[in-house]
Amino acid sequence: MSNVDWGLDGLVSELRARREHWRRARQRDPEINGREFPSLDVMHQVSEGLASALFPMRLGPSDLKPKAEDHYIGYTLDKALNTLLDQAVLELRFGQNPPEPFAQTREKAIAAIREFALRLPDIRSVLDTDVEAAYKGDPAARSMDEVLLCYPGVRAIIFHRLSHELFKLGLPLLARIMAEISHSETGIDIHPGATIGESFFIDHGTGVVIGETTIIGRGVRIYQAVTLGAKRFEVDEQGSLIKGGARHPVIEDQVVIYAGATLLGRITIGRGSSIGGNVWLTHSVPPNSQITQANHEQRCEEQRAKGE
Amino acid sequence: MSNVDWGLDGLVSELRARREHWRRARQRDPEINGREFPSLDVMHQVSEGLASALFPMRLGPSDLKPKAEDHYIGYTLDKALNTLLDQAVLELRFGQNPPEPFAQTREKAIAAIREFALRLPDIRSVLDTDVEAAYKGDPAARSMDEVLLCYPGVRAIIFHRLSHELFKLGLPLLARIMAEISHSETGIDIHPGATIGESFFIDHGTGVVIGETTIIGRGVRIYQAVTLGAKRFEVDEQGSLIKGGARHPVIEDQVVIYAGATLLGRITIGRGSSIGGNVWLTHSVPPNSQITQANHEQRCEEQRAKGE
Amino acid sequence: MSNVDWGLDGLVSELRARREHWRRARQRDPEINGREFPSLDVMHQVSEGLASALFPMRLGPSDLKPKAEDHYIGYTLDKALNTLLDQAVLELRFGQNPPEPFAQTREKAIAAIREFALRLPDIRSVLDTDVEAAYKGDPAARSMDEVLLCYPGVRAIIFHRLSHELFKLGLPLLARIMAEISHSETGIDIHPGATIGESFFIDHGTGVVIGETTIIGRGVRIYQAVTLGAKRFEVDEQGSLIKGGARHPVIEDQVVIYAGATLLGRITIGRGSSIGGNVWLTHSVPPNSQITQANHEQRCEEQRAKGE
Amino acid sequence: MSNVDWGLDGLVSELRARREHWRRARQRDPEINGREFPSLDVMHQVSEGLASALFPMRLGPSDLKPKAEDHYIGYTLDKALNTLLDQAVLELRFGQNPPEPFAQTREKAIAAIREFALRLPDIRSVLDTDVEAAYKGDPAARSMDEVLLCYPGVRAIIFHRLSHELFKLGLPLLARIMAEISHSETGIDIHPGATIGESFFIDHGTGVVIGETTIIGRGVRIYQAVTLGAKRFEVDEQGSLIKGGARHPVIEDQVVIYAGATLLGRITIGRGSSIGGNVWLTHSVPPNSQITQANHEQRCEEQRAKGE
Amino acid sequence: MSNVDWGLDGLVSELRARREHWRRARQRDPEINGREFPSLDVMHQVSEGLASALFPMRLGPSDLKPKAEDHYIGYTLDKALNTLLDQAVLELRFGQNPPEPFAQTREKAIAAIREFALRLPDIRSVLDTDVEAAYKGDPAARSMDEVLLCYPGVRAIIFHRLSHELFKLGLPLLARIMAEISHSETGIDIHPGATIGESFFIDHGTGVVIGETTIIGRGVRIYQAVTLGAKRFEVDEQGSLIKGGARHPVIEDQVVIYAGATLLGRITIGRGSSIGGNVWLTHSVPPNSQITQANHEQRCEEQRAKGE
Amino acid sequence: MSNVDWGLDGLVSELRARREHWRRARQRDPEINGREFPSLDVMHQVSEGLASALFPMRLGPSDLKPKAEDHYIGYTLDKALNTLLDQAVLELRFGQNPPEPFAQTREKAIAAIREFALRLPDIRSVLDTDVEAAYKGDPAARSMDEVLLCYPGVRAIIFHRLSHELFKLGLPLLARIMAEISHSETGIDIHPGATIGESFFIDHGTGVVIGETTIIGRGVRIYQAVTLGAKRFEVDEQGSLIKGGARHPVIEDQVVIYAGATLLGRITIGRGSSIGGNVWLTHSVPPNSQITQANHEQRCEEQRAKGE
Repeated sequence: MSNVDWGLDGLVSELRARREHWRRARQRDPEINGREFPSLDVMHQVSEGLASALFPMRLGPSDLKPKAEDHYIGYTLDKALNTLLDQAVLELRFGQNPPEPFAQTREKAIAAIREFALRLPDIRSVLDTDVEAAYKGDPAARSMDEVLLCYPGVRAIIFHRLSHELFKLGLPLLARIMAEISHSETGIDIHPGATIGESFFIDHGTGVVIGETTIIGRGVRIYQAVTLGAKRFEVDEQGSLIKGGARHPVIEDQVVIYAGATLLGRITIGRGSSIGGNVWLTHSVPPNSQITQANHEQRCEEQRAKGE
Repeated sequence: MSNVDWGLDGLVSELRARREHWRRARQRDPEINGREFPSLDVMHQVSEGLASALFPMRLGPSDLKPKAEDHYIGYTLDKALNTLLDQAVLELRFGQNPPEPFAQTREKAIAAIREFALRLPDIRSVLDTDVEAAYKGDPAARSMDEVLLCYPGVRAIIFHRLSHELFKLGLPLLARIMAEISHSETGIDIHPGATIGESFFIDHGTGVVIGETTIIGRGVRIYQAVTLGAKRFEVDEQGSLIKGGARHPVIEDQVVIYAGATLLGRITIGRGSSIGGNVWLTHSVPPNSQITQANHEQRCEEQRAKGE
Repeated sequence: MSNVDWGLDGLVSELRARREHWRRARQRDPEINGREFPSLDVMHQVSEGLASALFPMRLGPSDLKPKAEDHYIGYTLDKALNTLLDQAVLELRFGQNPPEPFAQTREKAIAAIREFALRLPDIRSVLDTDVEAAYKGDPAARSMDEVLLCYPGVRAIIFHRLSHELFKLGLPLLARIMAEISHSETGIDIHPGATIGESFFIDHGTGVVIGETTIIGRGVRIYQAVTLGAKRFEVDEQGSLIKGGARHPVIEDQVVIYAGATLLGRITIGRGSSIGGNVWLTHSVPPNSQITQANHEQRCEEQRAKGE
Repeated sequence: MSNVDWGLDGLVSELRARREHWRRARQRDPEINGREFPSLDVMHQVSEGLASALFPMRLGPSDLKPKAEDHYIGYTLDKALNTLLDQAVLELRFGQNPPEPFAQTREKAIAAIREFALRLPDIRSVLDTDVEAAYKGDPAARSMDEVLLCYPGVRAIIFHRLSHELFKLGLPLLARIMAEISHSETGIDIHPGATIGESFFIDHGTGVVIGETTIIGRGVRIYQAVTLGAKRFEVDEQGSLIKGGARHPVIEDQVVIYAGATLLGRITIGRGSSIGGNVWLTHSVPPNSQITQANHEQRCEEQRAKGE
Repeated sequence: MSNVDWGLDGLVSELRARREHWRRARQRDPEINGREFPSLDVMHQVSEGLASALFPMRLGPSDLKPKAEDHYIGYTLDKALNTLLDQAVLELRFGQNPPEPFAQTREKAIAAIREFALRLPDIRSVLDTDVEAAYKGDPAARSMDEVLLCYPGVRAIIFHRLSHELFKLGLPLLARIMAEISHSETGIDIHPGATIGESFFIDHGTGVVIGETTIIGRGVRIYQAVTLGAKRFEVDEQGSLIKGGARHPVIEDQVVIYAGATLLGRITIGRGSSIGGNVWLTHSVPPNSQITQANHEQRCEEQRAKGE
Repeated sequence: MSNVDWGLDGLVSELRARREHWRRARQRDPEINGREFPSLDVMHQVSEGLASALFPMRLGPSDLKPKAEDHYIGYTLDKALNTLLDQAVLELRFGQNPPEPFAQTREKAIAAIREFALRLPDIRSVLDTDVEAAYKGDPAARSMDEVLLCYPGVRAIIFHRLSHELFKLGLPLLARIMAEISHSETGIDIHPGATIGESFFIDHGTGVVIGETTIIGRGVRIYQAVTLGAKRFEVDEQGSLIKGGARHPVIEDQVVIYAGATLLGRITIGRGSSIGGNVWLTHSVPPNSQITQANHEQRCEEQRAKGE
């Protein structure tokens, strides 16, 4: 069959025109625009490497033997950390205008990744509490090994605890990429900025959204489709959103939030409370509250009646 | 260890019997049934190729340099378009009974893909408005590059704008395959038939469903778990669903729809309206409406009181 | 650039200390802990192999020809069953303490997988009813081939029907791994223990959760974000969850459950009922009930009024 | 680090100028030049597929079980034959000027490949004699399975017997590609035109060259670095080589040719002869000759003395 | 295009008939014939793993850093040794008729591979002398790193020293497979049975053949196309080759053998001798001999003149 | 089955001891020893990329279409040149002690690769003469496309002409790696230092060796197993080989050298000469000589008779 002429040259130059128009319109510095950028594929490898180094016998290669565990960790960590370092340099350099000397940026990146590495043992210890919480929190769970391998909520918290450290160490873009890799796999969307205490468990998980400034205590349990979101965005005088600022809920220790509940704004859910499924909540509740759709609506009606 | 005899021959012939029974029961033409069909894996490559050609420095290979951008686009586009052409021929031939001459089908496919190619620059320009809308619409976004790389909502709209053109050009199956590849990755389910204006942004995104005949204006913002669906399906005299027909909402410009809202049926949401989280809406609202669960329930109760 | 010293040896030994601390704290038998465990990657291959053997012309390799269908099935099945056998041995041996003789475990695994193989033709026949239900149930569906290839709900039910048999045959871990592979791809979370009748269709699907002891009749249709869950977990005297026990809904034949509905506890939804979108239901309803948010809330209020 | 500007556009256009100059100089028809051509990678897959179908338990996948042998063969053959058909169409179309109708070429290709397929069982039977000859001919051989897996001479004869049939069926280019794939792996260069009888064995093999018009009888054994070549090439009046024509040796049954021997021209080596290592031979020898370097040189000297 | 019917079923059954005929004719035990056999692909991985563990910074992955060297070795060795163990079990079981208990064979295999592992450090030390010999022996060599990475003769001796240990430990088939992998890559054919002293160097290498019972001393240098072969094979009363038996040359220390020389039979080349290019030698020579084609032919003629 | 304890830690530390011993013994600077080194795998990609850019329609991807030729070249070249630049930096830095500033080395590498890129069009033009020579020189050749795809001699000269430029530009290690990749594939060993004129053809090729300081004129044809080597190596006072120095033959225009001929030392083969198969030649011959084994031996004998 004869080859088809797609008018490639015209297409290519028209696409170039559109890109240039866009760059001009946004006053993009062409030099910055062409800079190499951290890569999803590379961060995917880093994520897998770190998870494998933390739980080698379950998340590492299926042919790994206990005797080679430490060797595997050593090799895998070194590779993951070096790759992460390269990505960190890319993130740090991306925005610089004018760029600082390369060696200086690299030193900053090394400091950040070195600190990140030092935190890995503690991350593992906290994750152990999460795995145990998942095992205890789901009547269908048969073993902690099953939980570690199969539960999307466990996978999501592993990647969150790693990406949260990157976020705190001044690498918010790498953190975000890692978080979105996890989101795509698990359907659970935790912003890397969120602060989450130990023994945290998300069951089923699809549709969970946890916003950037959320603070979650210890022993919290959350079900699918729960949103911990912002109530409304602050807008500046030009009508643009004001970025940053505490705008998501504070969840105290031992709270349970059932499926589909929506908690919006900088509210506080008191220790030991239970928020029922589908509840829509935009105000704080005291410790040990039992909020269900029924009592919640009733209370809302009462408030309306009282003119609140 | 000795090999296990699974009774393969029996299994194979029993499975054949089931397939033949099914084909007979559905009066499937065996000739058509055996025809080659478009492939998920192949359409996955096409989708990646097209996205990379549209945004080469961010969605293309991580080692691409600005100097080689145009060359990369030219080569990648040609490969993607030729592969898409082959898949288009498969779609067009699949249903033909009797099949028309091969050359004739190929000409139709070429015409469709050629037109598709010509629309790519405009698709890129519209996507630029979407990327900008995402950047402006999320207080957590740090750069447009981050938005392009990390946001599932952006990824979903890239694939939607591509698949929508395939849909309009008479290739609904290829369009659907591309849409489902995107759905699986992002958790966002947009039917390729949906018409969506520029500067569209879906935040978080998991659980969003946008139906086939939905029409969305400019500058619309949508959050996770929003459904723009059909109210009920028309049924014919035999009780079968009537396929086709406008049955999904019309969303006018500058509307915001918060998480978990459900809008069903051919209703119109007037320009500039805001639909609150978890709202359940089956009737039109005028421009600049502010619908929240509270006022919505109140209004529903009032309507019920009035016997509406 | 000089190599960075990450202090690998310290990291490795600190990570070892954390693992050992965890194992001691949970009184993990180090011998069991080091045992090989079923693998996600391997079960992924098994799942693809089985699905391809059931629907070779659509889910098999894109270059498969009808003449080679049976040969492809025979080869693919044998490979998948042998691999599944190895994984079954791993599951069965994992928990044994002390381990029984290897040959004995292998015989049990062979018996289970042999029985599993024998059920494959029936699985295919039931899946045919599901595919047809999907085609009939979605006005946007154009052909059964499209449905089979594109619909996440169809993909989810294929993997569920396979994993459910593994579950019943005493391989709950392999079943769970297969279910989670499907969950990650489709956003649909069906516990392999759930019993589901023929002609089952989930549309859109993201966010659906179906619990372990759910029983679903024939011809049931479910939309995105529906939860068939447990109301609350039984707790023993120590406050630990009691595992097992019927705790999820029974859905009778011909029921339709619209998007976002939440059904909790061992309730029964009578034959032919329709549960509206976003309905929150924790009590049984008789056959042919039409539950919508409106009438449901009204009835709840009446019940409250009556002091129920 | 800044990106380097390689002057890509200049390079690309200069390379184009060189290609166009070459095409003009050789009066290459641009239409033919751009035609798709058979591919080394694709023929590599075909070769592996055919070899695996002939010896499934040793050259097929390592996890193939005896019970699935026939199924594997059926599936693998169908795939290999269909791919080979596509390549055959490419070969046949390549030279056509003007091209004949596509369907006509395809029919020719189908006829050739169908005939090729029919010959596969006989090829297997002849190869069995080769494997046995290798086993019997090498004192270091331990089993026929080892011979089949390890001996480059056996690998070379497998691919030769396949490529020779392609050659005879009018597909000399596909034949040559397959022969060179084998040459690259084994260091043994057998032109696909060579005719070779059963029970043929090449030991060690590196450096063996067997020319296009060579004819080899049954039970012949050859060692490394043996050349069965042309003495000199016929030149036409313009000084160009005359292509085609019998110009390589005829080796009768049961001949052994030791390492490094060079036999040139259309000479005949009589049945049962033995040609010693490094012998240089350009004339025929009668049956049962024992040619060694020593006696050969002596005879040559005698001939020279006699003025021959 | 319509699908082609290749008459698959007929082909498959005819191929089966040929296989069965062959098995009957050779009285192959069908049970043994169906046994799993060591695999080229698997042994290829083992070979690469062992070579990488011996020379991690040059033959290991290109991103390996010195700090992770030991970890990489530990992990890589464990994987390679476990895989080698599985292959060793396959080799040992293959010939057993009737098979001995599995556990017994596995113990034998473990003993062999454990011993193999213990010899690896000495293999590394001897290989160091080979690398140095290559560097000193080739005026074109620029560094030892270049020699290790680029010289086929060095690659061949690495794999030979590994396969020779397997050969001595009772795993001649695995040894042979490894040797042929090396032969295919380098064109150098060293039988794993050959005994080779330290500081051995093969330059260029293509076409070198070294037979099973060859013994080579220290500091020997060999060039391309050298054969150290058997003169003739012993034949038993039935005319079959007698397998085994010392039949290849003994090369003493510090000998140099130039390109194309052929040394046949159990002859001894005395210490410090030099064998010229293309020399054909079938008798021993004393230490410090300088054999060239010229003086060799002269001496042969003199011997002939003397009636020797 | 229980895991085997291979005594990994002991093995790892013993292997480390051997490496350290070697490094100490050779006084290897540990800092240099740990430096990253050019990689075979990476250079393999570079080689394929460059060859594809030179002959895109035959050596590029099988699905490349003529319309996309230039785009493919541009993209492929940019990637190959950037990768080659990285490798060049590694080569240049490897030996530096102390290392010069990184930026300085990078500038040198850029200059070399930029010059290399500029020579590519001329390399293509010379290769065109080689392809044509191969077509004209082999009576079995059917088309120039076949020659380009199938002939190992053509593949070898493509990689030689590329590696020779790297050699001349001060990158002898990269050149050598590329040459050995070609050697392994084709069995043809051309040192990258060799100077070779246009219209060069090697037929069959296995076993050909062409030394570093060889100079070959135009229109030369060479057959398998030809050696153009050094006669003997110069040794310094300590008995070490003196590296460098012209020591290989000069072959003038239009010479033909038949299979197995060995030409050693800095001799000159006069224009238009023909050197017969297996000839052993260590002295120069005048133009238009016809050297065959017969006349050569006769002449040698005459020389001996004359006491030469």
